[in-house]
Amino acid sequence: MALKNQLNQVNHVNGYTNGTVGHRNTTKWDVRSSQTANNTFNPIRALVDEMDIRPNPEKKVITLSLGDPTVFGNFQPAEQVLQSVVDAIKNGKNNGYSPSFGHATARDAVAAYVSVQGPEVNGGDVYLASGCSDAINMAISVLADPEDNILIPRPGFSLYETLSLSQGIHVKHYDCLPEKSWEVDLEHLESLIDRKTKAIVVVNPSNPCGSNFNAEHIRAILEVAENNKVPILADEIYADLVFHDKSFHSFSSLSSSVPILSCGGIGKKFLVPGWRMGWVVVHDRNEIFGSEIRTGLVKLSQRILGPCTLIQAALPGILSTPEACHQETIAKLEKNADLLYEKLRIIPGLKPIKPEAAMYMMVGFDRNHLPEFKDEVAFTERLMCEQSVFCLPSKCFKYSNYFRIVLTVPEDQTEEACKRLEEFCLKHYKP
Amino acid sequence: MALKNQLNQVNHVNGYTNGTVGHRNTTKWDVRSSQTANNTFNPIRALVDEMDIRPNPEKKVITLSLGDPTVFGNFQPAEQVLQSVVDAIKNGKNNGYSPSFGHATARDAVAAYVSVQGPEVNGGDVYLASGCSDAINMAISVLADPEDNILIPRPGFSLYETLSLSQGIHVKHYDCLPEKSWEVDLEHLESLIDRKTKAIVVVNPSNPCGSNFNAEHIRAILEVAENNKVPILADEIYADLVFHDKSFHSFSSLSSSVPILSCGGIGKKFLVPGWRMGWVVVHDRNEIFGSEIRTGLVKLSQRILGPCTLIQAALPGILSTPEACHQETIAKLEKNADLLYEKLRIIPGLKPIKPEAAMYMMVGFDRNHLPEFKDEVAFTERLMCEQSVFCLPSKCFKYSNYFRIVLTVPEDQTEEACKRLEEFCLKHYKP
Repeated sequence: MALKNQLNQVNHVNGYTNGTVGHRNTTKWDVRSSQTANNTFNPIRALVDEMDIRPNPEKKVITLSLGDPTVFGNFQPAEQVLQSVVDAIKNGKNNGYSPSFGHATARDAVAAYVSVQGPEVNGGDVYLASGCSDAINMAISVLADPEDNILIPRPGFSLYETLSLSQGIHVKHYDCLPEKSWEVDLEHLESLIDRKTKAIVVVNPSNPCGSNFNAEHIRAILEVAENNKVPILADEIYADLVFHDKSFHSFSSLSSSVPILSCGGIGKKFLVPGWRMGWVVVHDRNEIFGSEIRTGLVKLSQRILGPCTLIQAALPGILSTPEACHQETIAKLEKNADLLYEKLRIIPGLKPIKPEAAMYMMVGFDRNHLPEFKDEVAFTERLMCEQSVFCLPSKCFKYSNYFRIVLTVPEDQTEEACKRLEEFCLKHYKP
Repeated sequence: MALKNQLNQVNHVNGYTNGTVGHRNTTKWDVRSSQTANNTFNPIRALVDEMDIRPNPEKKVITLSLGDPTVFGNFQPAEQVLQSVVDAIKNGKNNGYSPSFGHATARDAVAAYVSVQGPEVNGGDVYLASGCSDAINMAISVLADPEDNILIPRPGFSLYETLSLSQGIHVKHYDCLPEKSWEVDLEHLESLIDRKTKAIVVVNPSNPCGSNFNAEHIRAILEVAENNKVPILADEIYADLVFHDKSFHSFSSLSSSVPILSCGGIGKKFLVPGWRMGWVVVHDRNEIFGSEIRTGLVKLSQRILGPCTLIQAALPGILSTPEACHQETIAKLEKNADLLYEKLRIIPGLKPIKPEAAMYMMVGFDRNHLPEFKDEVAFTERLMCEQSVFCLPSKCFKYSNYFRIVLTVPEDQTEEACKRLEEFCLKHYKP
């Protein structure tokens, strides 16, 4: 859609369809926003802005849509996380510029931290960014040019598409399969690879699915990458946030040959998404990326000169937060996941897919039995209108017949939302 | 240079000169960094990396090159600036995502702050960014597309070129005149405008010149913009940092017709460049930008989701720092400027241009009397080699026969640097 838009707007944006370079209209202002800006398209924002989401005035709104764990106050960062920044301020030496890709101490701290999950890396393999979004932007930008393509998951988080299309990079969606706990359809994935494919993007654990790949499946994806010589861009921002009987495996921990850019950050696990601290870690044991990709990451980092130096200085302290704090976070998420899954799976017409990680659950609805709703957008609009419960329709993630629920809402609101969903489905269910 | 590079690299980067889209080499890895990354070119870094800057081992190095006021410890942020961030942490409500263009309270604080210098704006006119670099990036990106051009000052800071060329936007350099305290050569400026010109970039007060335009000159630049219907991108990061007998005038304060994007931030005036807090303010009293440019700025901000929320929350406190703190900063800068100017102007072969603002001074050297040095790079290299004093050659700013000195070095080092410069010039001076 954005690309079609781009083509349509060429004449419009240039403002002139002919004329020599030397002449401009000096009698009339004609200032237009750039194609680059016009094509920076946030599908979630665009869709939600167009939805009719007036709540039922009789019922208090319950928002199950926000991917920010801090909004309800029930997930708070550990005291050590906060104190580390206070210490960084009081130290008085963290106010100047850092190298654009980060201070050495901060990069070393990230290297030590991620080396627990994967092969050992050092600070020189770490490139700090202004949040995981900026890390993903750098990773995409260093690998792909306009007219190249990257492969992204469906359902999947919209940022990859936003960032790619604004740069003229194409995206192709590979399917993830609900019946296999959202594992990748490997044949579909491989069928999309062509000579312009510059990266396979994997998001594990997944937003919006809450899935967590097992080691065997990760090895299978790596095999597709190896066989086709396509690097992996691993979005591992939800690393470690997996439920009690599951294990998180980083892509780099299971490969010694495929070059991997792993993106992460402190936003989710440490419950401070607003602080904008992320990173790209280069895993390249066979020197396939070589110095070129590293130089490219450095160059790209020089555009905005790195993340806030106070958070950089606090990183060693933040990343050494006791494991018990994270276990508490995970326990709360899992409790909410269990509650939601058990309640929703017995509601006629709904089919939740049990999450294993992260902060999200996808819930399918059966259009055969809920025929009033032509799609998931209509379903979620009416749910808001009648029950004042707001969920994101899976169209936001390029997928049909599902909606996404977050696992970070306080228990009482989660329970109330389940009741309202039940009432809603019972009302509209056709046997 | 970068664009030529880009053309040369098309085949290289694609990795194939022909072949159908469906086939790729699956037997051999061939991963290259993107053109976008390759073309993100920092001229200062590139030049300095190639310079021969081995100091004289007998003399302690004095660095007069770093545009970071915090490196020597003699410029420290006010206690209120630091305490505002500590309060933001303790408040406990500033850890989640903000809107990508900033929280309303932070935007309102910036609006109130900049309305003192210019026409009144409100929070809705303010778009926060991850430092002034990101603000400039957003402003350039929303106005110009690949193959468009923007006009930038010469001598001028390299970031505009770095950001533009990496996006395929052309730059044209207009001259600033040392004999007129670095005022713009208006005829030259106007001669560069063509139908693809999307913005006139002005940097006032200037890095690297330390100049500060008077109201009359700003009006003359605005007239060129108005007559040719070209918007102004005003980089005003050094706003207010003007010496005692000068006044800062924002471009927006002197125009009611030309649409202006003004970029600023807290890095320089509040002495915290590492904190990465900047903004774009839209001045558009005649609604020439209309909603399109504002929508474009919002869309561009969604790429990396805004600056650190702790600094956002601290902004109202930071921006209300007592004026006395800034006066102290300015007094120190001016004292250093006076000292440098008085010492250097009597050194044979040197011609400092007296700064009126900001943190920099440009010093010309007379090649007729210092014939050993074929250019300013040779001059600064030898100065380092013999006297262990490092300054940036004006080639970094696309200009010849000057070097830039920062005004933020402690007084004793500044004095010692002057002595060494004198010794150096006396040695090499040919009457």
